[in-house]
Amino acid sequence: MFAEIKGLNEECGVFGIWGHETASQITYYGLHSLQHRGQEGAGVAVTNGEKVSVVKGTGLVTEIFGHGELNQLHNGRGAIGHVRYATAGGGGYENVQPLHFRSHEGSIALAHNGNIVNANALKHQLESQGSIFQSTSDTEVLAHLIKRSGYRLLKDKLKNALTMVKGAYAFVILTETEMMVALDPNGLRPLSIGRMGDAYVVASETCAFDVVGAVYERDVEPGELIVINDEGMTSEKFSLSNNRAICSMEYIYFSRPDSNVDGINVHSARKNLGKQLAIETPVEADVITGVPDSSISAAIGFAEQSGIPYELGLIKNRYVGRTFIQPSQELREQGVKMKLSPVRKIVEGKRVVMVDDSIVRGTTSRRIVSMLREAGATEVHVRISSPPIKNPCFYGIDTSTHEELIASTYSVEEIRKLIGADTLEFLSPEGMVDAIGRPYEGKYRGQCMACFNGQYPTEIYPDTVLPHEKEEVNC
Amino acid sequence: MFAEIKGLNEECGVFGIWGHETASQITYYGLHSLQHRGQEGAGVAVTNGEKVSVVKGTGLVTEIFGHGELNQLHNGRGAIGHVRYATAGGGGYENVQPLHFRSHEGSIALAHNGNIVNANALKHQLESQGSIFQSTSDTEVLAHLIKRSGYRLLKDKLKNALTMVKGAYAFVILTETEMMVALDPNGLRPLSIGRMGDAYVVASETCAFDVVGAVYERDVEPGELIVINDEGMTSEKFSLSNNRAICSMEYIYFSRPDSNVDGINVHSARKNLGKQLAIETPVEADVITGVPDSSISAAIGFAEQSGIPYELGLIKNRYVGRTFIQPSQELREQGVKMKLSPVRKIVEGKRVVMVDDSIVRGTTSRRIVSMLREAGATEVHVRISSPPIKNPCFYGIDTSTHEELIASTYSVEEIRKLIGADTLEFLSPEGMVDAIGRPYEGKYRGQCMACFNGQYPTEIYPDTVLPHEKEEVNC
Amino acid sequence: MFAEIKGLNEECGVFGIWGHETASQITYYGLHSLQHRGQEGAGVAVTNGEKVSVVKGTGLVTEIFGHGELNQLHNGRGAIGHVRYATAGGGGYENVQPLHFRSHEGSIALAHNGNIVNANALKHQLESQGSIFQSTSDTEVLAHLIKRSGYRLLKDKLKNALTMVKGAYAFVILTETEMMVALDPNGLRPLSIGRMGDAYVVASETCAFDVVGAVYERDVEPGELIVINDEGMTSEKFSLSNNRAICSMEYIYFSRPDSNVDGINVHSARKNLGKQLAIETPVEADVITGVPDSSISAAIGFAEQSGIPYELGLIKNRYVGRTFIQPSQELREQGVKMKLSPVRKIVEGKRVVMVDDSIVRGTTSRRIVSMLREAGATEVHVRISSPPIKNPCFYGIDTSTHEELIASTYSVEEIRKLIGADTLEFLSPEGMVDAIGRPYEGKYRGQCMACFNGQYPTEIYPDTVLPHEKEEVNC
Amino acid sequence: MFAEIKGLNEECGVFGIWGHETASQITYYGLHSLQHRGQEGAGVAVTNGEKVSVVKGTGLVTEIFGHGELNQLHNGRGAIGHVRYATAGGGGYENVQPLHFRSHEGSIALAHNGNIVNANALKHQLESQGSIFQSTSDTEVLAHLIKRSGYRLLKDKLKNALTMVKGAYAFVILTETEMMVALDPNGLRPLSIGRMGDAYVVASETCAFDVVGAVYERDVEPGELIVINDEGMTSEKFSLSNNRAICSMEYIYFSRPDSNVDGINVHSARKNLGKQLAIETPVEADVITGVPDSSISAAIGFAEQSGIPYELGLIKNRYVGRTFIQPSQELREQGVKMKLSPVRKIVEGKRVVMVDDSIVRGTTSRRIVSMLREAGATEVHVRISSPPIKNPCFYGIDTSTHEELIASTYSVEEIRKLIGADTLEFLSPEGMVDAIGRPYEGKYRGQCMACFNGQYPTEIYPDTVLPHEKEEVNC
Repeated sequence: MFAEIKGLNEECGVFGIWGHETASQITYYGLHSLQHRGQEGAGVAVTNGEKVSVVKGTGLVTEIFGHGELNQLHNGRGAIGHVRYATAGGGGYENVQPLHFRSHEGSIALAHNGNIVNANALKHQLESQGSIFQSTSDTEVLAHLIKRSGYRLLKDKLKNALTMVKGAYAFVILTETEMMVALDPNGLRPLSIGRMGDAYVVASETCAFDVVGAVYERDVEPGELIVINDEGMTSEKFSLSNNRAICSMEYIYFSRPDSNVDGINVHSARKNLGKQLAIETPVEADVITGVPDSSISAAIGFAEQSGIPYELGLIKNRYVGRTFIQPSQELREQGVKMKLSPVRKIVEGKRVVMVDDSIVRGTTSRRIVSMLREAGATEVHVRISSPPIKNPCFYGIDTSTHEELIASTYSVEEIRKLIGADTLEFLSPEGMVDAIGRPYEGKYRGQCMACFNGQYPTEIYPDTVLPHEKEEVNC
Repeated sequence: MFAEIKGLNEECGVFGIWGHETASQITYYGLHSLQHRGQEGAGVAVTNGEKVSVVKGTGLVTEIFGHGELNQLHNGRGAIGHVRYATAGGGGYENVQPLHFRSHEGSIALAHNGNIVNANALKHQLESQGSIFQSTSDTEVLAHLIKRSGYRLLKDKLKNALTMVKGAYAFVILTETEMMVALDPNGLRPLSIGRMGDAYVVASETCAFDVVGAVYERDVEPGELIVINDEGMTSEKFSLSNNRAICSMEYIYFSRPDSNVDGINVHSARKNLGKQLAIETPVEADVITGVPDSSISAAIGFAEQSGIPYELGLIKNRYVGRTFIQPSQELREQGVKMKLSPVRKIVEGKRVVMVDDSIVRGTTSRRIVSMLREAGATEVHVRISSPPIKNPCFYGIDTSTHEELIASTYSVEEIRKLIGADTLEFLSPEGMVDAIGRPYEGKYRGQCMACFNGQYPTEIYPDTVLPHEKEEVNC
Repeated sequence: MFAEIKGLNEECGVFGIWGHETASQITYYGLHSLQHRGQEGAGVAVTNGEKVSVVKGTGLVTEIFGHGELNQLHNGRGAIGHVRYATAGGGGYENVQPLHFRSHEGSIALAHNGNIVNANALKHQLESQGSIFQSTSDTEVLAHLIKRSGYRLLKDKLKNALTMVKGAYAFVILTETEMMVALDPNGLRPLSIGRMGDAYVVASETCAFDVVGAVYERDVEPGELIVINDEGMTSEKFSLSNNRAICSMEYIYFSRPDSNVDGINVHSARKNLGKQLAIETPVEADVITGVPDSSISAAIGFAEQSGIPYELGLIKNRYVGRTFIQPSQELREQGVKMKLSPVRKIVEGKRVVMVDDSIVRGTTSRRIVSMLREAGATEVHVRISSPPIKNPCFYGIDTSTHEELIASTYSVEEIRKLIGADTLEFLSPEGMVDAIGRPYEGKYRGQCMACFNGQYPTEIYPDTVLPHEKEEVNC
Repeated sequence: MFAEIKGLNEECGVFGIWGHETASQITYYGLHSLQHRGQEGAGVAVTNGEKVSVVKGTGLVTEIFGHGELNQLHNGRGAIGHVRYATAGGGGYENVQPLHFRSHEGSIALAHNGNIVNANALKHQLESQGSIFQSTSDTEVLAHLIKRSGYRLLKDKLKNALTMVKGAYAFVILTETEMMVALDPNGLRPLSIGRMGDAYVVASETCAFDVVGAVYERDVEPGELIVINDEGMTSEKFSLSNNRAICSMEYIYFSRPDSNVDGINVHSARKNLGKQLAIETPVEADVITGVPDSSISAAIGFAEQSGIPYELGLIKNRYVGRTFIQPSQELREQGVKMKLSPVRKIVEGKRVVMVDDSIVRGTTSRRIVSMLREAGATEVHVRISSPPIKNPCFYGIDTSTHEELIASTYSVEEIRKLIGADTLEFLSPEGMVDAIGRPYEGKYRGQCMACFNGQYPTEIYPDTVLPHEKEEVNC
């Protein structure tokens, strides 16, 4: 939802379970808790040991599975699921996951979070060899690579295929008889594994474990391939040169506050980011306010650290749905607000600190600063709980092109003027990494900093495309 | 939404505008901002000076008006609207407001928030005189009283009718050529008036003014009748014995945090309630958490006052909709959570203060306390930012019967045991009134305290029914 | 469906049953068989002896009751239902029948087929006495008259009310404990009574009896009031001056071919009309074709009598639904056909007799004649199996105003030229009456001939309105 | 619709147009006229010379394209479309056609009517070479064969692919720049070509030409490949050993009565079948009736030949839709009818001849005979206007397995007893062929007689499957 305000679109989410009598229902609740990672489409695949069946659709999980659709799936003890993020274009049913490929050798269903940076090159090559692609999804590339691999066992085919794809990926794969899980050698996307009685569960975020009553075991390792079947779970590394670099934005913006990424609670991390921000960029003010929902934790941290009271200066309408009628330009000029509105009584006559987690294009920040001033704020100080985003992401986040990223072109002072703030400050990269406090060595403690400093952990190719440049984006 | 968790159902909301070219669209945005006051149904009536047309339906405002339905209304400069709260039973299209009555003398559309306590008696009497009722709504009683009044002018008919109805009501009425607004002599329900350029607007809550870009003027007075037409606005008192008694729950639970009731911001009031609660009922603990969404402000106030950090110990799933599939009993026992889940990383090994705004039946509190313990909280201290609710409401809030209200039967200590908390404390009535700080004289400063102390500001009749006792409840 | 082609709109249909365990389901199947009498809306009311409940909606019977809506009705042994015909304007849920009126004295549900010619006068008078009308339906007038009647028993109230309404009506009324059936003193609309085991059934057409497995007993008499309850059925005449005059168009066009009206099968009557037409207006030709669906029987009769073979010269697309996209003017000029198309192979090079049941505005006839010629017919002879329609109907059929009826303004020869036929002949009034062959005395054997000869069997008032002149038409 | 009554399911229908400004709209109207050939799903693909876009869905043409979906397609001068027949299982979106395959070499959209008898063998072989199949449709096999063909030009690739597929097929294929049309070497499925101004049109049935205003040119020849692009149309034979064998059931049951197959009008053919039936199997009776809709023409022919009057003894409810609630067993025993009901007044006390076009399982015939007797028929003589169906169809018609075909197991006399008729007679194979009167040499004049005599015109393989034996059937 908020994504629409800011232009920083969420990625996708995956879920899997093996060994539970009501696997498809557990997957439904799991996907429901991952809904914030993708609202365009969702699907569930389930196996009963003999056959894989899939139900998927466009819309929210509750919309797709609201009227008995879950019952169309046969019962089974293994299931995987996927939520897909919102794209501008409509349609795209073909790209809703899990993708399901059937052959006389058996079925394979795939769900994927991430972005394959050499997808175009691989696709071209496969088509030249006679393959036909049904979707525009990167995920299908993996399916064709598996299909064409010379190995006999599916696990070996998959390992073979994984050596050929580059980029960010968290794959969950289901066949009639097993579930396979793979994370890219940089561990760019989060992926955790847990237990639910005898069953194994895997999810993009640990909040899914809490919702389904599962117990967290550990995060999947970069370059790790896990195979789970009725004989248990086995793990191995399919890549030898792994270089941990998890997406920083998962802590800053994407993940649900109740999730833990590599053992660190996201709400706590955000609160610490807010505290660190208060230390680095102090300000004299009357009230602290956050941009709902993702910046509330940081705002509370800033307030606690600074001693300035946290107040509800901005409020978000919960009932903005797909069919909301946007006010015309004329009505907007008359002051009709959408989605977000300032609380006059709170900000009137006050020096306001507006804490936000990031600035992408700057248009939303400008709008909010302006709303706060119209509502009577005497000063508006903007504090951002992350460094300036200067580079596009090729790993599954739909930021924007270089040109559209305001911090790619303008200095902090120029941005301050453009958004109309009295002061504007960003958190330092070092401050950010320290505040999050991941338990790893190295300058950035295993965080991907590419969108801040341009150091991409993988190769980027001339034909690597940004998600929104594709006809139909994918995870 | 939250209402479903707690069993304290929201009431209705009304909106009106006179003198704006796009009156029906403004009403749409106004209703949208009042959506939290009722999610079962909504409607808009508009007049172009010659004819009143109405569109209404069941569901959310965005669902009812999502596909061109707004265009089915003709253009016009006056409009009123209504959102209706959720009842257990389905159907009930007849009761969706505005009710619209046509006759050869002209049209009248009515929207109403409140509850008429002598509706049954009046209805019986009117039926004996030959009237036929189409709906089970109280609102229709007023229409029949107007119709049968001997006066010539509509305003006089309305005044005559208002002297006969008892209880809580905020009426907004639209005819071909004017808009009329009336508030009961106790001012039990909130109702404010504002300006939008030359146009007049009226709304149950001031948040609607902020959203449509209107400027707040004042709250409607108890016993006041306002008539607005193309010649301007006139006001008079239709009742001589007015005794201000606004619903306390509007501050505590119902109204949106960005609304102001009698000039007091709701978020600020709630934060003050939390501070007062911290003063009255101190506790040694590690973290403060609030039950989302309505108790967050109080929790932050408690944290600020006590110096114990506020944390996100409970999280609410934003995507729970009407078609959400509830987990089976079996799955619930396996730990599958709905709507609300605890954040293990935050509460594990901690002494937790759980701030909530009220306890109705106690079942939700028990569930949350239990979830917090399962997530590892070593102590759970429950603090309620209002006094115990011991009496049912006859003024438009769907609490419960006497028997179902836990505080009507049990002492605080007994409730504590029932919900499984380590300690449980409520705010004192005096503390509550002081913390809200309304600018009026008197022991309770013009607040209705009936649900706390049983002192109902109006007569209650033997046949006065609670909302949920009716076949189809109404506002 | 065809109505849209011709501009001669169907009326409504009613159904009732008393004494069957699954009364509401039987009513569903009954209404389904009466669907041709009205496609705009439908509803079912059912009583279990203590309470009347109603479900209704807009659309087809299968659409309204397709997803469990029938289960929303409680079980009960008495039920009534209604199908409502299509009007231009949308909305109109208020007018969908059965209308349901509740009071502390009990409930009453009404379903009606016909048109009250003094409805406006009665409405004005009732409003002056304080009544409020919810719908624009005539049916509601009867409810108010009943409500205001001084008598104690409902049956006496109803008789009292019936003496005040003038026009055409077949009423079916349901209370908690009985079903009442009334037909106007002219018996203008068809209404039959049957048995289904111990249960009584009543329906606008006997085809409903065949579908639900009931046995036809007799047609309801003009001016008859029937009361059915658990003690059985009683009948009496509420009017002393009855003058049988059933609508001729029921035989010619409206009723389903498998229905019997006053014991005469409709298909047989139509075939006889075709035979009589062949006798009265012989023609040299190669093939006989009928305009589907209503004129097929007459065409077959014409073929049998004349010895010229019947062929399928015109075909109707069965899949034209509400969402069918009409071809643009440009596409229509390029020859894109809708709904009806000629069969080139059948008519090419042939002298074609096109049998139709009536001509209203003449536009459809012109279109069909032109299509037949384009498909290669060398001659087109139009034969109409009824006399020219020269006068509007005030009794529930939505013909057109005087001005729009082509036969009201033009001679047969002028019409022939306007529609482009080689010859055009109508059936004589006497021939029509003889061919139908009703078992009654008198010149027209108890048929209403008003649309042909202007002799209306009831008074017509200055403020009697045609159905399509009302804001919302009704039955 | 009728298919549900009889268990003889319709196949699919294809349409294509090249060179018209509103190609996609013309395709919509074309598909609409072919709706009787498939009600499960439909789709349209359109090209603007640079890009192919596709919209498809499940349901009727008017449902899929009812709300602006047609506008989602870009404009273009070439388009193809498909209607798909109803299967038991739900879902199956993947199999809705046109199938659309994109690659860096360009796009290809395919629509298909028929059944590939060696599909399983080809699929197995292709998968072994690394191909992945997305659908279970035969049509996809052709796409993979094309993709893997070594030729350079698409036309040559297609010819190469066509030499490998065996069975019945009418393919319409669209690329960015041309439309290709291919019919199997036996011409088992009908396919005609026409002109619409400068544009070329192709359709499964000529009724589509009449509806869109196109002029019939000729039927596509067995083994013919037609390529149409902006330079015009070229034709060649891709197969040298063609053996004309069009499906007899197209004349008897499937095609619309206004279509012409190989120049013979279907209604006329059916009427002649009825006449021939009257000659071969005379009977003393009072009335002739047909089973609607497909047997009406034959019944009229039988009546004309025999001199016994044709009457409407059976009537079909037009409003039975997908959401129709089937009566419970109990209600059915009480006589509640669905879909089809007898007309008591017509058949009571009469010796009835019931003409039907075919008997598949016999259950429907038994039901109808029984209904006619219950309605009072004194004798029921069943006459079938085709020979007994003794063998399953492998060419796109969903009959039944050998075991389910009543005539495969029982003699005519045994069938007569099973269905409860007084007499039962079938048309002779020779009489059928003569009555249809196709203009070709040979014993059966180029008709496929396989379902009657087991002489399949192509090889049948051990793994050739019947449509309903597939997971998801296809055209």
